[in-house]
Amino acid sequence: MGFWKKWFPGREAQAAEFAKKFRPVPANFAPDRQQLYLYRDRDVDVGELEDLCDAVGWARRPPRKVKIALQNSFLVLSVWEVRGNYKRLVGFARATSDGAFNATLWDVAIHPKFQGKGLGTYLMQETIRELRKAEISNISLFADGHVVEFYRRLGFLADPEGIKGMFWYPSP
Amino acid sequence: MGFWKKWFPGREAQAAEFAKKFRPVPANFAPDRQQLYLYRDRDVDVGELEDLCDAVGWARRPPRKVKIALQNSFLVLSVWEVRGNYKRLVGFARATSDGAFNATLWDVAIHPKFQGKGLGTYLMQETIRELRKAEISNISLFADGHVVEFYRRLGFLADPEGIKGMFWYPSP
Repeated sequence: MGFWKKWFPGREAQAAEFAKKFRPVPANFAPDRQQLYLYRDRDVDVGELEDLCDAVGWARRPPRKVKIALQNSFLVLSVWEVRGNYKRLVGFARATSDGAFNATLWDVAIHPKFQGKGLGTYLMQETIRELRKAEISNISLFADGHVVEFYRRLGFLADPEGIKGMFWYPSP
Repeated sequence: MGFWKKWFPGREAQAAEFAKKFRPVPANFAPDRQQLYLYRDRDVDVGELEDLCDAVGWARRPPRKVKIALQNSFLVLSVWEVRGNYKRLVGFARATSDGAFNATLWDVAIHPKFQGKGLGTYLMQETIRELRKAEISNISLFADGHVVEFYRRLGFLADPEGIKGMFWYPSP
């Protein structure tokens, strides 16, 4: 049951529900032997998510829209640092999907203090594992230039068979 | 009310429901002045969809999974040729989305007999319009080499700011 018991004093059922959704992250992925947990549910606190986005240098987004995006994501995985009653979001990934053929990853982020130990690789491997469990065989993403190599090492191919990632944005 | 009245003789309410979902396609997009209708709902017949995929040379897929993919798509737009009681799927596009920021297009197809008149452009413009109505501002897709130019003319950018489309497939 672990730490979440403290969050739900006297509410065993709710604590048990949370225990099912949390899994300890192997200790070697934490830079300073912090206790990290992988969480598998959409109900991630939007404020925590925006703090993580700040930490990695991304623009803030309207909380109302972030909430909608989480609810409509097929898969949301997050990594939490836990110390006593304190917890903090330190890793995040989500996927949109048709639940059958294709999934596309968005908002993959690892807090700078937790980078360089393989936590991003662990999170991506767990993401792929969950999507494969759902029989999804085509996982796509749009990578900024500086992370193309990271995804290549995970087995992602850039422009396979000449397929091009393309974007449409509204005119400013 | 139009042609769907014929499909629902004596069932006015159901015919009215369908009438809301169908819109006539402007006549200039039909090569031989066929009557074409744009349909906006997920409940597209899987057999019709696979016939269209056959016609454009795509591999067949398990109907069970196609059904799941349609149900989990955020937007499904299809174009139907209608002659009397006969109807046939001649155009198709669908999008997965988080309903807030990102949408990704899949299975964009125009029947070969209906290509070359701008029907694909019309369908893509309607797709963009529907996604914009839902306040989605980032529309992405993965284009085969021979359709990159088609999407470029619609305003899609390939690899903007060095962003790379990447794919993960299971090892065979």
